[in-house]
Amino acid sequence: MHTFHITAPDGELREALQQKIDSLNKPKGAMGRLEDLALQIGLIQGALSPTLAHPCHLLFGADHGIATENVSASPQEVTWQQMINFTHGGGGVNMFCRQHHIELFLIDVGVAHDLSSYPTILSRKIACGTKNFLHGPAMTAEQCEQALQTGADMVDMCAQKGCNILSIGEMGIANTSAASLWMSIFTKTPLSDCIGAGSGLNEAGIAHKNKILTEALHHFHTQHLPATAALAYFGGFEMVAAVGAMLRAAEQKMVILIDGFIMTACLLAATHIHKNVRHYAIFTHCSEEKGHRLLLQHLRAHPLLSLGLRLGEGTGALCCYPIVESAVRMLNEMNNFDNAHITKYF
Amino acid sequence: MHTFHITAPDGELREALQQKIDSLNKPKGAMGRLEDLALQIGLIQGALSPTLAHPCHLLFGADHGIATENVSASPQEVTWQQMINFTHGGGGVNMFCRQHHIELFLIDVGVAHDLSSYPTILSRKIACGTKNFLHGPAMTAEQCEQALQTGADMVDMCAQKGCNILSIGEMGIANTSAASLWMSIFTKTPLSDCIGAGSGLNEAGIAHKNKILTEALHHFHTQHLPATAALAYFGGFEMVAAVGAMLRAAEQKMVILIDGFIMTACLLAATHIHKNVRHYAIFTHCSEEKGHRLLLQHLRAHPLLSLGLRLGEGTGALCCYPIVESAVRMLNEMNNFDNAHITKYF
Repeated sequence: MHTFHITAPDGELREALQQKIDSLNKPKGAMGRLEDLALQIGLIQGALSPTLAHPCHLLFGADHGIATENVSASPQEVTWQQMINFTHGGGGVNMFCRQHHIELFLIDVGVAHDLSSYPTILSRKIACGTKNFLHGPAMTAEQCEQALQTGADMVDMCAQKGCNILSIGEMGIANTSAASLWMSIFTKTPLSDCIGAGSGLNEAGIAHKNKILTEALHHFHTQHLPATAALAYFGGFEMVAAVGAMLRAAEQKMVILIDGFIMTACLLAATHIHKNVRHYAIFTHCSEEKGHRLLLQHLRAHPLLSLGLRLGEGTGALCCYPIVESAVRMLNEMNNFDNAHITKYF
Repeated sequence: MHTFHITAPDGELREALQQKIDSLNKPKGAMGRLEDLALQIGLIQGALSPTLAHPCHLLFGADHGIATENVSASPQEVTWQQMINFTHGGGGVNMFCRQHHIELFLIDVGVAHDLSSYPTILSRKIACGTKNFLHGPAMTAEQCEQALQTGADMVDMCAQKGCNILSIGEMGIANTSAASLWMSIFTKTPLSDCIGAGSGLNEAGIAHKNKILTEALHHFHTQHLPATAALAYFGGFEMVAAVGAMLRAAEQKMVILIDGFIMTACLLAATHIHKNVRHYAIFTHCSEEKGHRLLLQHLRAHPLLSLGLRLGEGTGALCCYPIVESAVRMLNEMNNFDNAHITKYF
């Protein structure tokens, strides 16, 4: 497997950063979570005055063979229909990217539909969807490696544009199924606690999804594979590409915005490839998908927002972007007590 | 008292708005709280495609006589020092206003310091701070009326610029004391549940604050005044001005962003003058100040953010502005299922 060299941010500046934050003209700690964010980003960049440059959003799209088992409320065709919709600017992801001036990249890593006539969709198709993991691995080890590399390549492309803050989203009908399995395997949580409604299953639908995924997991377990093999066995191409993107982004010392259930499962998987990726992640939103809260707890993550979003596409991360920007502005634009001639009051 | 004519938004468009929201290309409800916001703003403006225009932030500053009783961790001079700091652009409020292109107005309604040499501070000084309410009313009925009118006038000024969304903040050392008393009186909550650390009191400081305010409340109660008299008895000029601003903004059918403990107490007081003001309020942030959560519960308000901010200045509202904007953009920019040629999947 591709090797990522990810170093934890060195803590050399920690004290100086904390001192700078504490000297801003506000009661100590009065900017709450923005102060934690400022510290984290300052450490990532090794700078007392960090900056956010050329924010990019990578939206990976792919289809899942497991969709044929009716584990999603949505028909599979929604994947390609939405990818095309995004090229017209009408999706949730487009609206947020426009609002926050974030460059959006649409990347087909495995949509089961010919999208080659859409020039704004980058064609990196690995296959026309994964195989149905109820009957065996979703992808081969080679395809998994290719998906990781594709994610990493996209980050390199962003880095060349000067990007130092990245968010990632996905479009792939049935991908909560894959995410639930990754979660269960990597966190050793009972599968049923990892399974939710996805895009809108009712109780009977969730019970069916549970039955199918339990059977699939049973096949996997009997093979005694190493944990990271779960990436290929259950993963969607868009999810493995996201894992590759996260790992390369951490290698490049970028800030990585993580939102909902799928992306948090990808970050979880990424930590099993290289644990240091965790330092670069900002958890932006706690979604309504059932397993997400538990997954965040496992990662000791405290997401910034809880707005009930469950759209996917990375929209939770995009929605949170201005708050991350506020934290950086705080560090750079707020005056300190001395300069502002204010009596320090604590 | 000045009369405000506030009509509740008529519900005529409710069904059409909900239908529009449900037809956007996303699973039903998948935009969570943004959908509630879109509905509320659509109803306020009576429009299926509402817009946000010329956002303004009114920052009212004033001093409190009660500060001499050592009820705040901060010395009173911080009020005028911060007001001057804001003219230099170095405060938290400035940083957020710059980020979100919100016009900021600094208004001196009663700072105990001569600020007349600062042209960017609008001088509407009612007195050099209120009187110490431990020994009698903080202000006269006439001063209270003048403060309400000043708040209303500032909103009219914003309206003339085309503003239809307003946030309000305050600077006034010791104003959590006044807010705690308003909360206790209007919600009939025991005073000690309404009192917190403010800008950073320790336990002994909070106990002392509790003692002083309990004594002050005892004097007020023995006078059997109508509830709205609490405005004048305990209010800061900046708080009463904020109440007037909220009432006029509602009269003008503006969206009003409410953040922390002080501003929520002002909204509470405003509802006791005219209950319909509530329809125009968006609760943006749950602060760390002790009484705030309880006060929000009393108002059946579910704030959008909970980022641990406790800076004041209206910064919670400003921090939340882009999320409110996202809700409006959702309604205007997201495609619907028909136009996007997407299989409707619920």
